[in-house]
Amino acid sequence: MILGRVVGTVWATRKDSQLVGMKFQIVQEVDLDYKLKSKFVVAVDSVGAGVGEVVLVAQGSSARQTEQTHNKPVDAVITAIVDKLDVSETVDIREGQL
Amino acid sequence: MILGRVVGTVWATRKDSQLVGMKFQIVQEVDLDYKLKSKFVVAVDSVGAGVGEVVLVAQGSSARQTEQTHNKPVDAVITAIVDKLDVSETVDIREGQL
Amino acid sequence: MILGRVVGTVWATRKDSQLVGMKFQIVQEVDLDYKLKSKFVVAVDSVGAGVGEVVLVAQGSSARQTEQTHNKPVDAVITAIVDKLDVSETVDIREGQL
Amino acid sequence: MILGRVVGTVWATRKDSQLVGMKFQIVQEVDLDYKLKSKFVVAVDSVGAGVGEVVLVAQGSSARQTEQTHNKPVDAVITAIVDKLDVSETVDIREGQL
Amino acid sequence: MILGRVVGTVWATRKDSQLVGMKFQIVQEVDLDYKLKSKFVVAVDSVGAGVGEVVLVAQGSSARQTEQTHNKPVDAVITAIVDKLDVSETVDIREGQL
Repeated sequence: MILGRVVGTVWATRKDSQLVGMKFQIVQEVDLDYKLKSKFVVAVDSVGAGVGEVVLVAQGSSARQTEQTHNKPVDAVITAIVDKLDVSETVDIREGQL
Repeated sequence: MILGRVVGTVWATRKDSQLVGMKFQIVQEVDLDYKLKSKFVVAVDSVGAGVGEVVLVAQGSSARQTEQTHNKPVDAVITAIVDKLDVSETVDIREGQL
Repeated sequence: MILGRVVGTVWATRKDSQLVGMKFQIVQEVDLDYKLKSKFVVAVDSVGAGVGEVVLVAQGSSARQTEQTHNKPVDAVITAIVDKLDVSETVDIREGQL
Repeated sequence: MILGRVVGTVWATRKDSQLVGMKFQIVQEVDLDYKLKSKFVVAVDSVGAGVGEVVLVAQGSSARQTEQTHNKPVDAVITAIVDKLDVSETVDIREGQL
Repeated sequence: MILGRVVGTVWATRKDSQLVGMKFQIVQEVDLDYKLKSKFVVAVDSVGAGVGEVVLVAQGSSARQTEQTHNKPVDAVITAIVDKLDVSETVDIREGQL
């Protein structure tokens, strides 16, 4: 999954009929310090994520494994709202070693 | 899904027989200001998107989940025509924070 | 789909038995002016594309949706030979606007 | 598969119900000298990999082929903990030759 | 498929039980002159490719279409050992033209 922040919403009235009722959120990727990267993806929201929240996005066929997206032409879905990242401070020290 | 603008059409008479009757649109990716990026994809149009319109494109196996593309050798499909993007102005401020 | 030009052929006698009889073409990506980019992919040819021709390539599981590649370990297939690209001259003007 | 090092854990209480009980590890890609690259992925851990360990991650639909992730909206899974890489010293010499 | 050279092997005793008995080769991508690029992938070997050999690798769900990898959490498989690349010298001349 990728880690990103919800930065906005896409409005589209003319769309494939299977997409009616879905919410399309713009998720901009973040690094491990929550800093926004330039890359973004439009993802269906299956967990009620609001603008500003950091989320996990599943892509590809895995994006169709939620109740809302099953068999739908959707290739990205928000599957979780992140509470916290625990990132180890000591990993850098081991860099270059197995 | 990716966000892009339809910039043209591909004409191909010699093709897999399963592709007959499909319209192949050239969709160039855009950023959140609708500025064209260099990357583009050729996508089957399932919603009647015209040149100049901003659209959503689903890729991979999800591109085969429309009525027109079901079981076809198609890996990108236009699924929606974008009316509007609502992008939050305040997200930048929260950058670096959860 | 990606847009590319056939620039050569891969010869391989030792291969998975399911690949026997397939033609592996080297397809180098092109931009909208048909200029070669550095990226290339090896794709099974299902439409008789010759060296020098500009083609569409479907990737991922969609590459297995042709008669020749069904259920085979193939992740890229040439599905069409391009006759012409119609690229709009006016799209640039609209850049930055929906 | 990609090669990466587990550098941390994602905590998320609000998530798709199918993800309950899964452990989400942050896996940062490494090169063949185990040096961290900037790219990372969030992967479900199916083998008990701890922070600091070098692992293999399977992505896409293949990430759903473990007992724990079957039919779940998961697009990356840790499938192995690496003991050792054997990298040939002589390959460079042959560079440029078949 | 991508084109790469086998540069080494990954050893892993702690792994998903479905991976037992598979050989994990490190395949570094090459360009059309067989020069190593920086990108590499870890692929299951289904054709007996040795270190130093140039191979084709199928990725994604297509990597599960060999006898050895069927339904396994594997997203890259070596499907062929390359004997020769025939790359056209005249394609450059046609660059910029259909």
